[in-house]
Amino acid sequence: MLNFEFKNPTKILFGKGQIANLAKEIPTNAKVLMLYGGGSIKTNGVYEQVIAALAPYEVIEFGGIPANPEYEILMDALAIIKKEKITYLLAVGGGSVIDGTKFLSSAALYEGAEPWDILAKPIRTEKGMPFGTVLTLPATGSEMNSGAVITRRSTQEKLGMGGPGLFPQFSVLDPEVIQSIPDRQIANGITDAFTHVLEQYMTYPAHALLQDRISESIMQTLIEIAPTIMKDKTNYDVASDFMWCCTMALNGMIQKGVPTDWSVHAIGHELTALYNIDHARTLAIIAPSLYRYKFNSKKEKLAQYAERVWNIKTGTVEEKATLAIEKTESFFHSLHIKTKLSEYTESYEKAAAFASERLKSRGWVALGEHKDIKPEDVFKIVEMAY
Amino acid sequence: MLNFEFKNPTKILFGKGQIANLAKEIPTNAKVLMLYGGGSIKTNGVYEQVIAALAPYEVIEFGGIPANPEYEILMDALAIIKKEKITYLLAVGGGSVIDGTKFLSSAALYEGAEPWDILAKPIRTEKGMPFGTVLTLPATGSEMNSGAVITRRSTQEKLGMGGPGLFPQFSVLDPEVIQSIPDRQIANGITDAFTHVLEQYMTYPAHALLQDRISESIMQTLIEIAPTIMKDKTNYDVASDFMWCCTMALNGMIQKGVPTDWSVHAIGHELTALYNIDHARTLAIIAPSLYRYKFNSKKEKLAQYAERVWNIKTGTVEEKATLAIEKTESFFHSLHIKTKLSEYTESYEKAAAFASERLKSRGWVALGEHKDIKPEDVFKIVEMAY
Repeated sequence: MLNFEFKNPTKILFGKGQIANLAKEIPTNAKVLMLYGGGSIKTNGVYEQVIAALAPYEVIEFGGIPANPEYEILMDALAIIKKEKITYLLAVGGGSVIDGTKFLSSAALYEGAEPWDILAKPIRTEKGMPFGTVLTLPATGSEMNSGAVITRRSTQEKLGMGGPGLFPQFSVLDPEVIQSIPDRQIANGITDAFTHVLEQYMTYPAHALLQDRISESIMQTLIEIAPTIMKDKTNYDVASDFMWCCTMALNGMIQKGVPTDWSVHAIGHELTALYNIDHARTLAIIAPSLYRYKFNSKKEKLAQYAERVWNIKTGTVEEKATLAIEKTESFFHSLHIKTKLSEYTESYEKAAAFASERLKSRGWVALGEHKDIKPEDVFKIVEMAY
Repeated sequence: MLNFEFKNPTKILFGKGQIANLAKEIPTNAKVLMLYGGGSIKTNGVYEQVIAALAPYEVIEFGGIPANPEYEILMDALAIIKKEKITYLLAVGGGSVIDGTKFLSSAALYEGAEPWDILAKPIRTEKGMPFGTVLTLPATGSEMNSGAVITRRSTQEKLGMGGPGLFPQFSVLDPEVIQSIPDRQIANGITDAFTHVLEQYMTYPAHALLQDRISESIMQTLIEIAPTIMKDKTNYDVASDFMWCCTMALNGMIQKGVPTDWSVHAIGHELTALYNIDHARTLAIIAPSLYRYKFNSKKEKLAQYAERVWNIKTGTVEEKATLAIEKTESFFHSLHIKTKLSEYTESYEKAAAFASERLKSRGWVALGEHKDIKPEDVFKIVEMAY
């Protein structure tokens, strides 16, 4: 097992009716900026519940944060934070709204001239403006971690940021929100969480037996609940399992003491930047291709995953590993998620060069758990995903 | 899944050499009381490492905290804290030293006349004196939770306490400490951690699929590493798995959203009070007996545990459940832990009456996940364990 540090101070309020309890987590004298997205919270009852819970506070609203939260729009929110002397942020939404709020938490206390530097340099956030979240879309895990990804429309860039100052102080996880989520987003959420686990697991054996088993537990649970939640979003128990899996997939627990990959995300982000394909779907496109390309260095873990998650007990390591990749693709297909880039766009042929050139231009010369995936490998991995 | 709140702010520093990093976690102006037990840290190299790391601080030492930390001895430490104006506590030891330190953390800021009231009433600790830990004996999980159990020798009482103010600020987990732990304590640690999981798992199905699987993961890992760690404590990888399992077994994660039992501990505590049997061994005595006595209400989970942890795939629910209890006993036996009270003491016949009378006298009329275990049931459960 590798040495590690672990600290996750976010308080989780999980279950039916927990939105009503959020006020006890916010200081009584706070001036709150409530941030949300395209307005779905106004039709599913969440908006009313949050407004009722915030009754004791002075609240300003900022809606319209888009999927893949855009720097340009967030800068408008930052101006309001400064002008109105906001002291507390409340994100009500999915990963995009929460990630955008994390950027604002950092930028609100940032003293440099250009907030984009937080992403471009990048600058680690030791202390941010305090914030909480009300999660409306399980997927990214942002509700219980300290990372965010922000998009700059003008330059087609999508960059990460983070630091110990960016954990939400609290997050409300009420599985009842799931019944009004569109099918497409449910499928994306399962795919996103599943791939988060893969990024922290599909590397090489590192003798972290419990972390491996917990990763396998999350994947087994997602596979178990997927058919039910895709059919019946009103099943509260299954919605609860889905929501908690998404949080546990990226709250830091399973990445401690083990090597991690994250090259699927790095490459996937470029496909979103170029084609605006949903984040989760870019992961489903890249992961199988990447695991085939890096088969030799990942085959032991692929075989372990085959045995424990997919119950493939016979065959050589190579045979099990090959079947595991096929099972993963089939799982994505069962969610109506396509796994080839050409199924999403007719102009797919420019993707390999675009992704590898962009990674090269940023000086990211190596990705993956062995730091051996170079721009030319990215070219081939994307090409294999056509 | 049941509603839950979860927050665990303890920072874990895990791995070789991490003791050297503890000073960066303690405020520079702190006056530190370093607490330890019988002195084993002076022969295994931990004492020297801690003293070296604490070089920047004014430090007073308090050794001699016994297993099952005793109120009478802790009151001597409390007098030093007040006289010397201590501002930070550092526990260097196993669960007993850490639990004793938690009591002191609470008592140091307690304004009532009688610190025993913290346990007797009990009083929830919202804020304690800040403290960290250096774990030398994996078992109780106290290094990453906010609970403690304290013994009062004069009255043979063993009571629990807790509250959000009692999480360690940090805990150093260096698996290298394990090589100097006596075999008996290794066996106790495995048994203690395994039973902690059982208390949070062996109830009834509550549709918390991920929590179940994580509980099973911890038990599977303990079973997998037990033969190796019992034979070779210098195997760092296996020592790491053992140490992390013990922490994860009782850091709150697996108890969220599910019913919990804890009657094995409640009854076991009385056996320690009466006979001074090691805490872990009292759990191994009581658990099989309790699961047989409450067979009907626990058989579904016993059968699930049989299938997933012990790989028992055939038979009825009852057959699997019965085998699962036998497998659990065999596992304890494989650690050289005896599971019958008469194997520990000749005067075992007074135990049933003692335990049930003591539970009755404290007004604890009901134990277990259904609150249906009454003093007369305790009598029978203990009697079945003779």
